[in-house]
Amino acid sequence: APPEIAVIEGDGIGREVVPAAVEVLDAVGEYAFADAEAGDATLDETGEALPAETYELAASADATLFGAAGESAADVILPLREAVGSFVNVRPARAYPGVDALRPETDLVFLRENTEGVYAGHEDRLTDEVSTLTRVVTESASRRLGEFACEYVEERGKDGFTVAHKANVMRETDGLFRDTVLAEAEAAGVDADTVLMDAFATRVCLDPEQFDVIVCPNLAGDVLSDLAAGLVGGLGLLPSANIGPERGLFEPVHGTAPDIAGEGVANPSATILSAAMLVESLGDDDAGAQIRSAVEGVLSDGPRTPDLGGEATTREVTDAVLARL
Amino acid sequence: APPEIAVIEGDGIGREVVPAAVEVLDAVGEYAFADAEAGDATLDETGEALPAETYELAASADATLFGAAGESAADVILPLREAVGSFVNVRPARAYPGVDALRPETDLVFLRENTEGVYAGHEDRLTDEVSTLTRVVTESASRRLGEFACEYVEERGKDGFTVAHKANVMRETDGLFRDTVLAEAEAAGVDADTVLMDAFATRVCLDPEQFDVIVCPNLAGDVLSDLAAGLVGGLGLLPSANIGPERGLFEPVHGTAPDIAGEGVANPSATILSAAMLVESLGDDDAGAQIRSAVEGVLSDGPRTPDLGGEATTREVTDAVLARL
Ligand SMILES: CC(C)[C@H](C(=O)O)[C@@H](O)C(=O)O
Ligand SMILES: CC(C)[C@H](C(=O)O)[C@@H](O)C(=O)O
Repeated sequence: APPEIAVIEGDGIGREVVPAAVEVLDAVGEYAFADAEAGDATLDETGEALPAETYELAASADATLFGAAGESAADVILPLREAVGSFVNVRPARAYPGVDALRPETDLVFLRENTEGVYAGHEDRLTDEVSTLTRVVTESASRRLGEFACEYVEERGKDGFTVAHKANVMRETDGLFRDTVLAEAEAAGVDADTVLMDAFATRVCLDPEQFDVIVCPNLAGDVLSDLAAGLVGGLGLLPSANIGPERGLFEPVHGTAPDIAGEGVANPSATILSAAMLVESLGDDDAGAQIRSAVEGVLSDGPRTPDLGGEATTREVTDAVLARL
Repeated sequence: APPEIAVIEGDGIGREVVPAAVEVLDAVGEYAFADAEAGDATLDETGEALPAETYELAASADATLFGAAGESAADVILPLREAVGSFVNVRPARAYPGVDALRPETDLVFLRENTEGVYAGHEDRLTDEVSTLTRVVTESASRRLGEFACEYVEERGKDGFTVAHKANVMRETDGLFRDTVLAEAEAAGVDADTVLMDAFATRVCLDPEQFDVIVCPNLAGDVLSDLAAGLVGGLGLLPSANIGPERGLFEPVHGTAPDIAGEGVANPSATILSAAMLVESLGDDDAGAQIRSAVEGVLSDGPRTPDLGGEATTREVTDAVLARL
């Protein structure tokens, strides 16, 4: 039986870019697609941003393709990451030839811890005046991420990775994170160095080529990868993969873009590149490479959607990608 | 009696740029300088990175000028901020004509909460496997920062401010921060809007002019202001002011720069600009404006230190600033 792919369009331009990526998937392989609902519209209709059926589908499908959710994003995406058992969020941020970028030489991959930190945060409003959040860092999650990072750099022929952290202030928690990830690197014979997350923010702007693969705690990965998105020209091109031991959830880094939703001009590239990561997670590296090279060809020679200075529609860009497969 | 200024050079280039700023202070007003030690060298000599005398001096002087500390930075700067009772860290990040910047149009001021968040974090190593950090956000600290932000934008003739936060994940803590700061703005009739800190990281790269004054929790302010430093061309130009109700601590955002320490070529601009903020805190706005305009003149017409592509020494740049006062 063909692999089952759960398809969750969500809100806004998710409803335009996800169908585009599904067409691309359909063109490169045999998949059984199963649609499910989540997001603001679903919340309005059903009273739940993430219905149990959608959670169950993501938890059992071979892979999930997700678009975007509006106000309810955190209530949708965080449980979905958990549904697929994801422990790492892989976020490549690279500039493409032909696309305006603040730092065209940027070519980074963030490996973001995907289960804990402030996201596992137990919060308390102790009194009217005082609130607390308990940030959690465990050795096991750090080790699993470190192992993944070692395999990742070995498989991709990378030289090593950099651990971004704030262990000068968060000594126990980020200290445990940093030391555990470094110990994995040492055991695997992988080169690893470290950088304070604030220093990283300055240095990546000044010279992104000094970094390659960056391993981060959850919130640091969220912010630093969005910073890298700014260096490559915005979120329209950035895919991401939430990887678990048996399945993954693949999503563009961008949101619902309410200003252009419904107009048929959303850039489908980030979602199509997420679909490339999806097929790779299913073991189909050839199809992944095919999709990636088709998207790169279109980014460099057009047609282009308005966010990249063009006048093409989502349909036209999708057709151009399909034509190159 | 003239105001007493505690002078803490610290380590590395702190020992070169702080004396430069003291000369500038001496040229614009009457101050009594009191030297004190802190940092790695002090730790080696005395067993303490921040001796009690230094802490006491900062806690009683009218203002403190600090350079930089090496490995022991957190053990020096965090207690010193507390010694002066600082509740806000003011971090202007602007590009200067004539200085290479990734985004020359950048002109931002970060108002960073300076007492709590993860910095007030109580950390625990619960087991070998599990560590936690309790992040603290209080209404009173948020209110005090909000009040300061309102006064700040009114005094400077700014249109309003933006609160950067991550309340979609840290709902209670950053929610309390955001809502309290917004309530202050509303009460004061100051315009305020909000942005998620991750979205800010992307958007400030794409178009820094959409922001002006940014009000942040402690760690967000640390990272986002360092990001802005990358947009204006590095840390060499960024001053900062740790403001308390009665006194302040003024420091360049850069560190000890061990690679060039001792060579006499460190850029003193950030520390001299910090001295401008210092004299303003003592009520001497004219002297502050004088210093600022002298530094701007030198940045635009030279001489320049090597970090800005020139060949001048710290001495030459300092003399050029002094000549313009
Ligand atoms: C919507 C939000 C909860 C989410 C996150 O913080 O992880 C988003 O910013 C992202 O990066 O996917
Ligand atoms: C040295 C460190 C504790 C400090 C901080 O995190 O505040 C530094 O990064 C800064 O921004 O002044």
